[in-house]
Amino acid sequence: MKLHNFNSGPSILPQPVLEAASRAILDFNGTGLSILEIGHRTAWFQEILNEAISSVKTLMQLGDDHEVLFLHGGATTQFMQVPMNLLDENAMAAYCDNGIWGNKAHKEAALFGKVQVVSDTSDRKHSYIQKDFAIPSDASYLHITTNNTVEGTQWHQFPQTAVPLVADMSSDIFCRPMDFNKFALIYAGAQKNMGAAGVNMTVIRKDVLGKVSRKIPAIMDYSKHIAAGSLMNTPPVFAVYVSMLTLRWILNEGGLPEMEKRNRAKADLFYNTLDSLQEVYQPVVAKEDRSWMNAIFFLQKPSLEESFLNLCKQEGMIGVKGYRTVGGVRISMYNALPLESVQTFCDLMRHFASKNG
Amino acid sequence: MKLHNFNSGPSILPQPVLEAASRAILDFNGTGLSILEIGHRTAWFQEILNEAISSVKTLMQLGDDHEVLFLHGGATTQFMQVPMNLLDENAMAAYCDNGIWGNKAHKEAALFGKVQVVSDTSDRKHSYIQKDFAIPSDASYLHITTNNTVEGTQWHQFPQTAVPLVADMSSDIFCRPMDFNKFALIYAGAQKNMGAAGVNMTVIRKDVLGKVSRKIPAIMDYSKHIAAGSLMNTPPVFAVYVSMLTLRWILNEGGLPEMEKRNRAKADLFYNTLDSLQEVYQPVVAKEDRSWMNAIFFLQKPSLEESFLNLCKQEGMIGVKGYRTVGGVRISMYNALPLESVQTFCDLMRHFASKNG
Repeated sequence: MKLHNFNSGPSILPQPVLEAASRAILDFNGTGLSILEIGHRTAWFQEILNEAISSVKTLMQLGDDHEVLFLHGGATTQFMQVPMNLLDENAMAAYCDNGIWGNKAHKEAALFGKVQVVSDTSDRKHSYIQKDFAIPSDASYLHITTNNTVEGTQWHQFPQTAVPLVADMSSDIFCRPMDFNKFALIYAGAQKNMGAAGVNMTVIRKDVLGKVSRKIPAIMDYSKHIAAGSLMNTPPVFAVYVSMLTLRWILNEGGLPEMEKRNRAKADLFYNTLDSLQEVYQPVVAKEDRSWMNAIFFLQKPSLEESFLNLCKQEGMIGVKGYRTVGGVRISMYNALPLESVQTFCDLMRHFASKNG
Repeated sequence: MKLHNFNSGPSILPQPVLEAASRAILDFNGTGLSILEIGHRTAWFQEILNEAISSVKTLMQLGDDHEVLFLHGGATTQFMQVPMNLLDENAMAAYCDNGIWGNKAHKEAALFGKVQVVSDTSDRKHSYIQKDFAIPSDASYLHITTNNTVEGTQWHQFPQTAVPLVADMSSDIFCRPMDFNKFALIYAGAQKNMGAAGVNMTVIRKDVLGKVSRKIPAIMDYSKHIAAGSLMNTPPVFAVYVSMLTLRWILNEGGLPEMEKRNRAKADLFYNTLDSLQEVYQPVVAKEDRSWMNAIFFLQKPSLEESFLNLCKQEGMIGVKGYRTVGGVRISMYNALPLESVQTFCDLMRHFASKNG
């Protein structure tokens, strides 16, 4: 049976990436060594790292003000690392709490300095993105989560502010072109649109560094990682390699304009189907804030949820159960997910609706 | 040409591990999904994690007092994480500085509390392990690096002390049976004897936790990781999988007694050869402290070093150049390195000596 992988992360990767990664584990580029066995200070790995970094710079159209790092850990590590590097003990950072991950982010930041939650959308279960909130001009930075994996919302436009903008883009990085240069810091765990779990990419505009007085442990210090070119310690070699392959794939397919075209087509197909079947399915996210990456909905009759999920399972739809604390249904439509999978899912929704309408 | 992989880490892995890992990237256990695409909260990954943890417990013969975690990052992360969790601001930890890594470890610890270096072997370029040093009884813990990858020394016996013993075992974990229960905390980056870069294993005796007053960021808090069963956040799924496969290989081959037998045979062969060719090669490490894992030596005539290293390269010997700040020659003989590679290297040493003696 053909499987359709709607996992929220770790999630579907492009087939050419998997094939290259599988081959490299037996023999990396004809070296006779596995990618798992090569030293991180070899010219071989340096080439991998260089390509990964230059692909990011190309895709984001970054200038020399920004540095690209590949670091251990995922977004949860960055929840700590960002304030450790950017938020002084007596300073304040502004955070948007639009869901589970933004909430975790500002709670970690509060260990390092003052935190002001400038947008909190819990009044409507984080089913929308607030646009009209005030940003204190003395904030060290404003932190947003550009896509809320659990709640199914996405920022389609960004706040205009003079305050440095910090974004967790873990679940929508590289889904479309955008003005990446307006961000002071961007981080993303790789395991959604950019590779396998075990590495995160952090893009930093250098002028925001060096402004805190605390002593930062070496492994957490962005400046030290920049000085060492992401090679301060043994990096997660294989995870960086898979990111490099995934970035290469994005570029080969046509870059971010092509990703936007595909993601828009998938999102349009899915949400149009959802909206047309509201006697059975309940959309919950404000239309203008719907995520292209993670779509959530409920069954109008909660008693039908289990049979819907069972049907999905029977038909080879993987990862469609809503997040453990939310319930309902969620499909993730990352870059590597083909339109065909969304089409098949929509057919199933229609079929189920016709039987249970 | 047959390659011989003497890399110091990332380093040689068992062929069955590479084959299984390569297959799993295309199709994990017949699921139709790649190991890179499965969710970390699936029963599939839980089984991988369970097997990895139970293999560690079996190999170390640990009781219920100890917990086994697989965490992001390597030893450099633990240099920070250990004192963050175990060393209160006004308390003191004792550290042995027997080389580059122990030195980095105590420098990180000093960011969190007081540090007393109780053994410093820099007087003889860290070419030995000091046995007769005093350990203050009020130390929160004593930290040692059981094997010094760069300097080629290894602790073959451990200090007797009532102070909790913390060990960085990154480069000799599972090289032989030992009384692991005497350690309060053991950590090891996986990329030498236990898998691929991008994950570390930390074994903790639970009674040492909960004794510091600082607030610990979630991702750094051992107690939170224990409570979440190593699943507090998205773990480095593939790196954990490769560790599980490597641990399974160790058990299948005969466990730690068999690893000891093999490692002793390789070390004996190499060091006997080295000692017999001292007109050309200069051993530098005290005999009783020589590492089974990383053997270092110099050419008696430094002018011959380059031609020796070139010959190694010609003959397919990978990773034999000494550490960048030390120079000379280093071969790493981790668990997965076959005796045949050491034999081939010794033959080359003899051949080179006969031409240049």
